Order: sequence, then C-alpha cells, then structure tokens
Amino acid sequence: MMPDLTWNHYSRSLVRYANLGFSMDAARMGMEPDWMQSMEPANATAMQHIAAIEAGAVVNTDENRQVGHYWLRNPALAPTELIRTAIENDIVKIEEFAAGVEQGVIRPPGQERFTELLLIGIGGSALGPQLIDQALRQDGKGIPLHFLDNTDPGGFDRMLTLLDGRLEGTLVVVVSKSGKTPETANGMLEVQSAFTKRGIDFAKQAVAVTQEGSLLDQTAVREGWLDRFPMYDWVGGRTSVMSAVGLIPAALGGIDIRSLLHGASTMDALTRFSADPMQNAALLLALAWHRAGHGQGDRDMVILPYCDRLSLMSKYLQQLVMESLGKEFDRDGRVGHQGISVYGNKGSTDQHAYVQQLREGPDNYFATFIEVRRTREQQQPSILVDAAGSTSADYLQGFLRGTRQALAEKGHPSITISIPEVNATTVGALIALYERAVSIYASFININAYHQPGVEAGKAAAGGFLAMLSQVRDHLQGHPGEGLTAERLANALGESDIEDVYHALTHLVANRRGFQVIAGGVPSDDVFQFVAA
Amino acid sequence: MMPDLTWNHYSRSLVRYANLGFSMDAARMGMEPDWMQSMEPANATAMQHIAAIEAGAVVNTDENRQVGHYWLRNPALAPTELIRTAIENDIVKIEEFAAGVEQGVIRPPGQERFTELLLIGIGGSALGPQLIDQALRQDGKGIPLHFLDNTDPGGFDRMLTLLDGRLEGTLVVVVSKSGKTPETANGMLEVQSAFTKRGIDFAKQAVAVTQEGSLLDQTAVREGWLDRFPMYDWVGGRTSVMSAVGLIPAALGGIDIRSLLHGASTMDALTRFSADPMQNAALLLALAWHRAGHGQGDRDMVILPYCDRLSLMSKYLQQLVMESLGKEFDRDGRVGHQGISVYGNKGSTDQHAYVQQLREGPDNYFATFIEVRRTREQQQPSILVDAAGSTSADYLQGFLRGTRQALAEKGHPSITISIPEVNATTVGALIALYERAVSIYASFININAYHQPGVEAGKAAAGGFLAMLSQVRDHLQGHPGEGLTAERLANALGESDIEDVYHALTHLVANRRGFQVIAGGVPSDDVFQFVAA
Repeated sequence: MMPDLTWNHYSRSLVRYANLGFSMDAARMGMEPDWMQSMEPANATAMQHIAAIEAGAVVNTDENRQVGHYWLRNPALAPTELIRTAIENDIVKIEEFAAGVEQGVIRPPGQERFTELLLIGIGGSALGPQLIDQALRQDGKGIPLHFLDNTDPGGFDRMLTLLDGRLEGTLVVVVSKSGKTPETANGMLEVQSAFTKRGIDFAKQAVAVTQEGSLLDQTAVREGWLDRFPMYDWVGGRTSVMSAVGLIPAALGGIDIRSLLHGASTMDALTRFSADPMQNAALLLALAWHRAGHGQGDRDMVILPYCDRLSLMSKYLQQLVMESLGKEFDRDGRVGHQGISVYGNKGSTDQHAYVQQLREGPDNYFATFIEVRRTREQQQPSILVDAAGSTSADYLQGFLRGTRQALAEKGHPSITISIPEVNATTVGALIALYERAVSIYASFININAYHQPGVEAGKAAAGGFLAMLSQVRDHLQGHPGEGLTAERLANALGESDIEDVYHALTHLVANRRGFQVIAGGVPSDDVFQFVAA
Repeated sequence: MMPDLTWNHYSRSLVRYANLGFSMDAARMGMEPDWMQSMEPANATAMQHIAAIEAGAVVNTDENRQVGHYWLRNPALAPTELIRTAIENDIVKIEEFAAGVEQGVIRPPGQERFTELLLIGIGGSALGPQLIDQALRQDGKGIPLHFLDNTDPGGFDRMLTLLDGRLEGTLVVVVSKSGKTPETANGMLEVQSAFTKRGIDFAKQAVAVTQEGSLLDQTAVREGWLDRFPMYDWVGGRTSVMSAVGLIPAALGGIDIRSLLHGASTMDALTRFSADPMQNAALLLALAWHRAGHGQGDRDMVILPYCDRLSLMSKYLQQLVMESLGKEFDRDGRVGHQGISVYGNKGSTDQHAYVQQLREGPDNYFATFIEVRRTREQQQPSILVDAAGSTSADYLQGFLRGTRQALAEKGHPSITISIPEVNATTVGALIALYERAVSIYASFININAYHQPGVEAGKAAAGGFLAMLSQVRDHLQGHPGEGLTAERLANALGESDIEDVYHALTHLVANRRGFQVIAGGVPSDDVFQFVAA
C-alpha cells in the first residue's frame, strides 16, 4: 500500500459532519480508486442490508430474531407501534426512576438516599455501562457506580469489603437478558447473602434488568424487588448500551441519556442513506477494515483514543467487533473463520508500551487514532509546560500526529477519527458509528453479526466439568480416608477424561475443607483423599 | 497441530515447582518431539545468553548497557560490589521510607500523615505499579494509590478534582528514568501548579524516582524535595517493577516487597540452569511462543487470567512482550520485523466478549490461561449457588476448563499456568517467568530485547509538530484578524506538510482563546484567524 498523502487528497477524502463536529480520515488506509470502485456493488448491497435491519427484517436468522438496536435511539423507526411505544415508555420510566432516586423519593428502608450503585452483569451487560461511566461521569453528579462482572469469589469479596458499612445505602442492579447467566446469578446470590447476613432486605434495594418472564424476572416478582426494567429479544447484549442496560446506570450516574441517544440517532441519520463512502463514515470505516484485512481479518485493529476518558473504548469495541464478526460460517453455511482481532488502551500512554512493535514489528495491524480536540472541560487557560509556550494539550496532539506519522513512514495504515470533546452526544455518535460499520462489514463478508454460537461450546463443556466436579466431590466425601489417584477415580466414575478429573481434584484441595493431596513426582502419582473434619 | 492430549502425556509434560505451588501445562501447544529436539541447540544458546545477561555482559549493545533486572531480586548476582550494595541499600531505604510514612514520622507540613499517594509516570514507570496495586492491595492497608500516566489535560483535571481538598495530605511520586519524559514532566508541572494555587509547598510532599543527575533529579535537589530514589541505566522501564519504581508504591501500599522479590528470585533460580524445557518453565514458555508463531509472531498472544486481581496482567505483559520483541532488525542487522501482539483482559468475563471469535474465527492466536486455584482469601465456606452444591469458585474453574476445551476442539493452541493464590510471592514469580521467557525468546530470534529504537521516531515527529504548532500560533497571533487557509499559512511558514498545519490550526481553534475558523465545504476551504480578545 502506498497511500496518496497529498493535502488535496486528504482534503477531498475527509468525511466531516459539521453538526457533530465529527470527522474521519481514512486517506492512510491505502484504498485505491480502483479498489473503491470494485466495492461499489458491495456497498449498495450493504446499504440494502442495513435498511432491512432497520425495517425489522429477521436478519438474525439462526436465532429467528429481529435486530433492533438502531430503533432504541429513534423509536419512530420501530416496525410496530408496540415496539415504538415500549422504547419510548422505557426511557421515560428510566428518567423517572433516576429522578426518584436522586430526590430520595425512591430510597432504601430507613435511609434518606441510595448512596452507591452496584451493577451485576457481564459482557454486554457490563461493558457498555463501564464505558459510559468512564467516559461521561462528571464529578459530584449521580451515584458512584461499582461493577461485579465475573464469578470470581475473590472479586466478590473485594467489592463487598469496599462496600462494607455502605450496603444499607446500596442500590443493586442485576442485568441479565436470559436471567440464566451463571456469573451474574452467582454475583447476585453472593451479594444477596451479604445483605442477609447484615439483616438488610435485599429485595427492597434490588432492580432487575431482564427479559419479561425470565428466571431473573420471576425471582424479582416473587421476592418483590424494588423495580424491573425490560430487555428485548431484538437487542443483543453487545448492542444493548442504549437500552435499559446502559441507560439506567447512566441516568443514575447523572449522565444526560437523551443526548447519548441523540448523538447515536444523529450518526445513524448521517450514515443511513448514502452508498457513497465519501459521504458515509460508517461505510468508509467498514471499507477500511476490509481493505486492511483483505476481508479476512488479516490485520488486527488497534484502537488508540488519545483521551483518558475513552480508555475503555478499545475494550468495548473489542467485544462489539470480535463477538459480531468472529464467525466460523457465513450465511450460506460456508466455512470462513472470519473475525478481526481488536486491542488497545489509550494514547499517548501506549506509545510507551507497544508502539515500539507497531512501528518496527510485523505488518499485522492497522491503527485507529481517536482524537478528542479538547479534553480540558472549559476553554480555560492552561499552564505552559515548556519554553515554546506549549500546553499539555499541545503535547497530546503532537504525540498523536507524531505517532501517526512514524507508523505511516513504515507503511502501516491508520484511520483518524476526530470529535470535538467527550460528551454524551459524541460518545453516542461514536458507538453508533461502530455499530453501523459492523453491520456493513458483516454484509461485505456475508455473515450473521448478531448471534454468538461459539460461546455455547464453552458453556456446555463447563457444565460437563461442573457435573463431573460434583461427582468427584461426592465420591471422595463418601469414602473418607481413601486415597485415590486421578486415574483410579476416573475409572471408578466412568470418566474418560482423566486430566479433567485431576483438575477437579486439585481444585477441591485448594477450595474445600477436608480435601487433601499427597503429591507425587508427577500428576499421575498424586494421591487425593477426603478427611472428615 | 494435533497435540497429544492423553493423560500420560499431560502428566509427563507438566512443569511443577512445588515450592511455589506453580505449574505450567504446554501440552496443548503442539510442540512435537521432533520439533522439540530440533530446538535443543537454540535452547543451549539461549541458556548461555541469559547466563551472560546475569553475569553483566553488555547485551543491550545499541545503548551500550548491561541488563540488570535479574539482579534486583538477587543482588548476589550483581557483577560488581557497587551494584550489589546499591540494590541492597535501596531496598532498606524504601522500607524505612514506607515505615516512616506509615508511622507519620515522614509527613506533610501541618498534617499528621500522608493520606493519598499520587504516582506520576508512564509506560514502564506506571504499568508495573498499577499491576502490583491491582493484584496485591489488601483493604485497609497502606495509602490509597492514584496514577497520572498521560499528558491529557482532561485526565489531570479529573484526578485533581478527585483529590480536591486532599492535596495537603498527598504524597507525589514522580517516576522518570531520564527525567525528560514529556507526559510525566507535564503531569508534574500541572500537579505542582495545583499545589501552588492552594498554597501548599509541593517540594515537601514530592519524591523523585530517577537516574542520578537527570533533569528530574536536578529539579528535586534544587527545590529540596522530600526524597529521591535512584533508577539505573542497567534497568529498562518495562523491567523496572522490582526496582524503586515498583517497590516504593508497593511498600507505601502495604505490600510485602520482600516476598515479591523472593517470588521472583525463586522463579529465577528454578529456571536458571536447566536447558531441559521439561524442567525449565521459562524455556518451555519461550518455546511455546516460538512454536505457535513460527518464530515470527504469526499468532497473537491472548492472556486470560481467571481472577479479577490479575486483570491488568495482560496489559503489563503487552508492554513487556511487545516493546521487548517488536523489533525491525536482528542483532546482525538483518530486517526481521519481529514481535508478538498481546491482548486480553480476564476470564471468565472475556468469554462474554471475544471468546466467540477465539473459538470460531481466524487461526491467528494462542491463548494463555492463568489459573488461580483459590481466589477467596481464606479457605472459608462459600455459599452454594446451585442445586448440585457448587460454589462461585467451582464455576470459575468450570469456565476455565470449558473454554480451554472449546478452543482445543477447534485446534486452537493454549498454555495453562497455575498458581495457588495471588500473593506477593506468586506475582513476583509470574513476572520473573515472563521476563525470562522474553530473554530466551529474544535469543531464539537473535534480537536485542532491551532497547526501543522505534519509539524515537514518533517522539521526533511529535517534536517537529510541536515546533510547527508554535510557529502557526505565533504567526496568527502576530496577524490578528487576517484569515488564512492551511495552504496559505503553510506557504508563509515554508512548511511542506499542509495537512499538519491544518491539524495545528484545528487544534488551536479547539484549545486556545481567540483562534477561530470559518469552515468551508472541505478542509482546504477552511479559513483560520486569530482575533484578539
């Protein structure tokens, strides 16, 4: 790739949206005119596909579902009156709930106000809220937000220690679409147990965000939780940040959710109709990904936001892009092993970490610089940090431009996205831009970007391991004092995978009273037993 | 790759270090016996190389420096009495300093105690301390630790708002080897300015960690800072966590630094002599990387610690591995474009993010599972979370095994490293393991892993941009009211890169009073001017 880096080319190819203060520069992605022309039919098809999505087609065919995240910020798009009304009512209800909490109308028993918010969720039910909180939280506004996003007992303990003495004022929001996600269910049970131990009524301080009728929903109804908010089968976890999943914690955090939705719907509108990539940033972005990785993910996507507040953007996009695009089969059942690997943290910090490799190492990535033109909140005078009269902001800009140039000198492609500042509108617009680019790229490579069939295999294998683990546990507890190797126990249980039995045994020794090991020279010599206390 | 997954093979190939409770399983990396045999000469050479490093050879040839991070945890290895004594004295001094702060003997003027610790550093001067704090901090012990690791004015403001009203009790540790790192220098100046504004004497609460005689050291001497601790030219930033860089914040955070050093020196000792990879975990790890990426980084390294406390491990290893191994030239000056891309966050959380792609997507990575056998601090009874009597810990273990199996089913290679718990010893051992694997892999591919020449290009380009930016600023301020396009201004200044001038102008409009733009249809039509207030 020898991109045209002349001023004329840059000036003609920059996509600018004046009403968002947004611009995108893909001139360094080596998308030659011939190649761009060759993609025109694909562009047209992609625009038809995304139009079909927005019109309510069942594009998530494997799961027989519509894909409705674009409706969340423009309910008028929704294919039915029922859906439109549901979206609008949810937003109003969320705002009322947040206002009630802020004013102390909705409050914990015996307390004046909720003072802490604990969100329990994982993946799409946590990453969006985390991004929004990190990016948009203003000091002194809203309730402090904490997260449990794993089934790590050490993580539960650390959080419960942090909140010790404050659980009386803690609002717990449990987020799980199916209500069956074990990490989230476990987190809920651990937190519930901590409440009960302290004599606090969990239900009075708990809110469920889940599909109507789910196991979690049933629990919330049965136990009389403080409130319930819906998730819909037409919104996937990784695109749920503009549903109740993201809006509830945002609203409780004092963040302007209407502006977040407005930013997204504005970007949606700007990228909805034109099949000309010079007018359509989402289309141009998807094309750039395609060019960089030859439509097969041959290059990793490195995300470099030059702004502390956007340091979770790479992790958020990692999920959005990899879970959407990482697919074995295309829509016609052909094996493709598609995907684009995504990583990054923030600039200029990462220049002191892995940019060494980006400049000198393998030609296996393209960079995306996210420029925030002003990060200091007001246009207040900054101190000068050098003799030339530069400010910290000047250095941040200088490092972005310097690194971009250093990579270009070695032929490494890069995209630069610019926003005027980090606020609810621009963050909403950025999220929408990437959601739409994902939809378009998925059309290019003919995959379903809205399911995650590969996650099931790991879950099923985990279920098998857990069942075996409880057999191992029961067997040893049933034969106290009897020493067994992993192999003998596997034979006794009729388990073919001796290694898994060994891991179960090792796990029990580390985690449960009474389980012991007499270590041999190698694992096959280790002898395990249970000794009653 | 069709790895031998029989129990016998697993049992024979597991590397176990009983005194650390450590084990490493590389049986799923497809390292066939023939291939292993073919690497034997390379193994022998690598062991000679690492012995030479530890003996004080000038292996960082480009910078004419020794590489001494292995001495930090075993000063007896140091090649001179001077170095040995310096390391030992530093540790004692750090412990005394931390004890003095804890006891309030060392305290801020007019206050009883330091109550907050603010570390200003970037890259190797921040990531290590961040990892240690995240992994090892115990609630209620030590001083809370905050970080500034960028030159983002928005980030400075957010931190200073957080610390507002607490600066009187804030101890500031400024970490910069050369003392010239602009991000760190800017952070220091911004914080110093905030102290001054509030009438607090910065020098009385500031500590410098830097090379003797550096610009930062001179400043600290001149201004009479509270204390100074040394960095040495034989310790690189990315391996500095066991020097004052990591030990000062750790000790102030109530973390047992002797155990951290002990864990590292124990791993060093266990992996120092044997050229048999079945005895040497660091050697086996480096071999696994080589096999997975064909010695050319063809596969990304995905790091999945199943433990919240280790969630920064992937970011830490990203720097250690990519900055060390990402090199254009080998030691003989041949172009190689070496490197291994590293990413990851934590399990089981990431199963709900990008594991979909790991299972179904491109064959472009290998996974490293880091198992922590017990994450709940004591072996206390956990609540049961399902009808089979499982605990949250059982699920964490189940998900690790399930995901490992799901990836193996699709032929994706993985390594599993196990430690009994997260404590100072095991974290020290993990860091040492990876440092040694990097040294060994660097020997395999014949590169200098201890310099970072590629970082200079970006810095130089940034310097050029900053110089141009101040010319642009001065020119416009010198001609108030005069409207100029980027092209006309570039011509006036004799600047050949019109696009850079345009970015400078756009940056000034966003960040400085008086700079304005009348936007045209495309950037080349934008007209910029300065209007005096």
